[in-house]
Amino acid sequence: MLKIAVLGGSGYTGCELLRLLLSHPNVKVTAVTSERLAGKPVADEFLHIRNCSLKFEPLKLKSVAKKADLFFLCLPHKTSQETVAYLHRAGKKVIDLSADYRLKNSKTYEKWYNTPHSFSALLKKAAYGLAELHREQIKEASIVANPGCYPMSAILGLSPVIGKYFIDDQSVIIDSKSGTSGAGRSPARPFLFCEVNESVRAYAVSTHRHTPEIEQELGFASGKKVNVIFTPHLMPMDRGILSTIYVRLKKKTALSKVHKIYQDFYSNEPFVRVLAKGMYPSTKAVKGSNFLLTIQG
Amino acid sequence: MLKIAVLGGSGYTGCELLRLLLSHPNVKVTAVTSERLAGKPVADEFLHIRNCSLKFEPLKLKSVAKKADLFFLCLPHKTSQETVAYLHRAGKKVIDLSADYRLKNSKTYEKWYNTPHSFSALLKKAAYGLAELHREQIKEASIVANPGCYPMSAILGLSPVIGKYFIDDQSVIIDSKSGTSGAGRSPARPFLFCEVNESVRAYAVSTHRHTPEIEQELGFASGKKVNVIFTPHLMPMDRGILSTIYVRLKKKTALSKVHKIYQDFYSNEPFVRVLAKGMYPSTKAVKGSNFLLTIQG
Amino acid sequence: MLKIAVLGGSGYTGCELLRLLLSHPNVKVTAVTSERLAGKPVADEFLHIRNCSLKFEPLKLKSVAKKADLFFLCLPHKTSQETVAYLHRAGKKVIDLSADYRLKNSKTYEKWYNTPHSFSALLKKAAYGLAELHREQIKEASIVANPGCYPMSAILGLSPVIGKYFIDDQSVIIDSKSGTSGAGRSPARPFLFCEVNESVRAYAVSTHRHTPEIEQELGFASGKKVNVIFTPHLMPMDRGILSTIYVRLKKKTALSKVHKIYQDFYSNEPFVRVLAKGMYPSTKAVKGSNFLLTIQG
Amino acid sequence: MLKIAVLGGSGYTGCELLRLLLSHPNVKVTAVTSERLAGKPVADEFLHIRNCSLKFEPLKLKSVAKKADLFFLCLPHKTSQETVAYLHRAGKKVIDLSADYRLKNSKTYEKWYNTPHSFSALLKKAAYGLAELHREQIKEASIVANPGCYPMSAILGLSPVIGKYFIDDQSVIIDSKSGTSGAGRSPARPFLFCEVNESVRAYAVSTHRHTPEIEQELGFASGKKVNVIFTPHLMPMDRGILSTIYVRLKKKTALSKVHKIYQDFYSNEPFVRVLAKGMYPSTKAVKGSNFLLTIQG
Repeated sequence: MLKIAVLGGSGYTGCELLRLLLSHPNVKVTAVTSERLAGKPVADEFLHIRNCSLKFEPLKLKSVAKKADLFFLCLPHKTSQETVAYLHRAGKKVIDLSADYRLKNSKTYEKWYNTPHSFSALLKKAAYGLAELHREQIKEASIVANPGCYPMSAILGLSPVIGKYFIDDQSVIIDSKSGTSGAGRSPARPFLFCEVNESVRAYAVSTHRHTPEIEQELGFASGKKVNVIFTPHLMPMDRGILSTIYVRLKKKTALSKVHKIYQDFYSNEPFVRVLAKGMYPSTKAVKGSNFLLTIQG
Repeated sequence: MLKIAVLGGSGYTGCELLRLLLSHPNVKVTAVTSERLAGKPVADEFLHIRNCSLKFEPLKLKSVAKKADLFFLCLPHKTSQETVAYLHRAGKKVIDLSADYRLKNSKTYEKWYNTPHSFSALLKKAAYGLAELHREQIKEASIVANPGCYPMSAILGLSPVIGKYFIDDQSVIIDSKSGTSGAGRSPARPFLFCEVNESVRAYAVSTHRHTPEIEQELGFASGKKVNVIFTPHLMPMDRGILSTIYVRLKKKTALSKVHKIYQDFYSNEPFVRVLAKGMYPSTKAVKGSNFLLTIQG
Repeated sequence: MLKIAVLGGSGYTGCELLRLLLSHPNVKVTAVTSERLAGKPVADEFLHIRNCSLKFEPLKLKSVAKKADLFFLCLPHKTSQETVAYLHRAGKKVIDLSADYRLKNSKTYEKWYNTPHSFSALLKKAAYGLAELHREQIKEASIVANPGCYPMSAILGLSPVIGKYFIDDQSVIIDSKSGTSGAGRSPARPFLFCEVNESVRAYAVSTHRHTPEIEQELGFASGKKVNVIFTPHLMPMDRGILSTIYVRLKKKTALSKVHKIYQDFYSNEPFVRVLAKGMYPSTKAVKGSNFLLTIQG
Repeated sequence: MLKIAVLGGSGYTGCELLRLLLSHPNVKVTAVTSERLAGKPVADEFLHIRNCSLKFEPLKLKSVAKKADLFFLCLPHKTSQETVAYLHRAGKKVIDLSADYRLKNSKTYEKWYNTPHSFSALLKKAAYGLAELHREQIKEASIVANPGCYPMSAILGLSPVIGKYFIDDQSVIIDSKSGTSGAGRSPARPFLFCEVNESVRAYAVSTHRHTPEIEQELGFASGKKVNVIFTPHLMPMDRGILSTIYVRLKKKTALSKVHKIYQDFYSNEPFVRVLAKGMYPSTKAVKGSNFLLTIQG
């Protein structure tokens, strides 16, 4: 029975993680931290949580490190840097949900996140946690950097074709529509119900921090540097991301051929389904699962 | 052209008030205050506002008092007390959207709002701004206390029958369902989109501050002290309140008779419509208007 | 491995049932019927369904009866009557999600559903499928009548106290708020997105067919005939029901005592949680689970 | 006082039109037709409608033609063709909300709408009712073809720059997000609340009938044939469209220059506002108005 601790468990990622872990037959959650909620029973903050008698505890690294074998970090970026490093030194496995270990190039990290990276040597050891692309590396890694929400949809949507001769790699436009849980659970006026409901808007146009993450993974996949145009939109719904992706063809290519490339690429992937022609994915169809639907446009 | 100032104009009441005032042919908005947004153009905060070149200004009573004849106060309760008194002394008309001048009995106010009322003499001068019940008084008042959102629905729903011989006045149960704008525009976790959306919950059960306001006005209408059970619920929608009201009959009474009482009571009211038998009101039907629909149950 | 067939699997109940059954380790779904979708892969209608290669098939009782040991019926009431009877004669277990076998008294059924009941002898054999009240009977029954959505919330909310000396059994008021999936998946104007969204309304006031079901079970629990006032409301959300229940006390009773009665009643129930004082349930907290939260008011 | 009739007034366009017309000081609505609702008071179908004692009447052209000077047609395309022609012959002014008179080229119409156009001579007389582009023509026209919802957002968003030397006219990508009212008020499963809510999906990819309308008007504006890629998306909200538009630059151009082009183009337009740099439009900011917000990306 693998012992697991969730650090920073009071937000939406922590909450969902707990839901999944608590129903997993082979793991045991042994600690959940939150400064804000320290002392409060987890099941009183998240009423949907059953079978959990834990209380939130403040994050004291030294003591919490002893409580588990695997640590999920749902901490803000920057804070995560040190915590990952500490737990790594202590010989623990870490799955980091922040952005701190996703970018291989510390310079890129420092530019987009406007803060130094103090553990750049660890970046090479961290696996980018997208199983469809890096399954073997993830299995052996002691640090896994969980992908950002937008990058996951963009990277999986493009990986089968990026780098192919008929694709113009420099023409990629990603128009993404996201539910509001991605904005987190901290109180902020723009994410009040009455601000979000019955509305849609773009934000962070050409400046969103998920851009370099998308470009890094598409670069790996294609073998070339890739620049993308990425426009995130906030949607009046809780969860789910739909990314509509536009790419110019260098050479006219039959839709059926492209379709087959996608089908082959994902044929053994349990969580990706390539829809038949004429079917379009909806975010509702994957809500609450880690199932991804994809089509070619 | 009546000159109007809106004090505390950065929230949802201020925002909606501005929409209405700016399209009114006989008034001119001359000032809008907000500490948080001081210096920002009103039309840049509320993108739906047109034809308004005002900037938010900090609330400096002495100078703002000179700018208008009529003042709408969208300030927090307690703060409103003094501001109303100041403007009243300066000979201005005031419409107060806070709770500070709604309750005639300062003791009741002090108990429910947990703060002293320093201007209890003014309470008698203030008209309770529900035109259907106090039209003449409102016309002449220099202070108008705008009713709370829940009380408006409950009082108008009950006024035609409360005090009637066939009604048990002590059996009133008001089960109200409200949109989220009533919670205001200050950032708070319980009103984040992802907390409110796809959910309904009761809150402030038997402790909501609108209770004494409902009881006061029903008491006036019936000539007797009235106690009510009032349960507010938060709904995943922006605006609108539906109050489902239950009253025990002392004497069996035909529905058609009750219906006629409602129709007669509101026959000359432009903003209240008594629906025909078999039709039920929906909040959507009155959204964005000051139109109220009522039926008897 | 129990073989299961879902009859009438194209609606919201069928869809949710399939989601649960397909992830259950001890059962195998062997048939799903739908006249409308006959021939279509189930996974193409419900994109969130994985690991299911079945196609919808038309409902031919004779052949489908051979395909499974247990049958879930998501058919319209009236249609269900005969299908249940047929499968019962064939020695199959049936869980009927329609209203056809919920009411023990066929006269009551005929009055509320305005159609004769041709198999009233079977009504006695059917267990009312609310495990918290009828667990032992359900285990042995070959016909289980799945409770209506509203009744489940009302009956579980009232069972611990109905019949108690301090409760006025004839004063029960149930004000229920339901998500829209309860209206089913057949196209109808009142349930279009733009009709439901941003609105709340009461419907079927004092005429809803779930009323006799609530009264039957409360009658069993209290040992007396119980009449209730039940007002359903349509909410702008997918799923979940919140029932706010009002009961008059015959005798003043401490809240803590009532609370303890609830806690004791549900102390061994895995799916019911009695919240601590001061906590109110929200429908979101139980969405997608069969977890029920309850408090005393 | 201009007399106005609304033909096909039972849907969302009719409903909104009535709201606007009934509060307009210079017009009088004299007839509203609907086959489905014939005989029903308009104010009983649309509870938010006040001051209207009309009943829906069946559409009998001969008699209804006598009742008004100006006709709004909210009829299905194809049906509108003949009705417009009849009213035009009768010397009436017509504003047609269908697609029947929007496309100048009857061949294009016939291809996209898969039906012949029997009054192609009238197409030249019809003004495309986008005031910002065709104000003078609209003033004098006796037939006005009201623009489609998507085209309005796309055309106004692109008109200031299309045809400019620094723009690649053949690179236009329009990614549009629309509320659900655009799907109309006829019952259809894909537009049920529970299908639309909490979800977003693309539809009619590369086949939407608004495409030729966009291309026609952009062609007029640029003086060249323009082809666009247009992807509509269905959003979980009632109203509003956000179009995110991507265009390749032929020549690097300062954002401030582009911004100035937009500001100049719309400087005298009361219903279009060009937002300052760094501000992004949200659909909520224009809901219920005919105000359009635009930025350059």
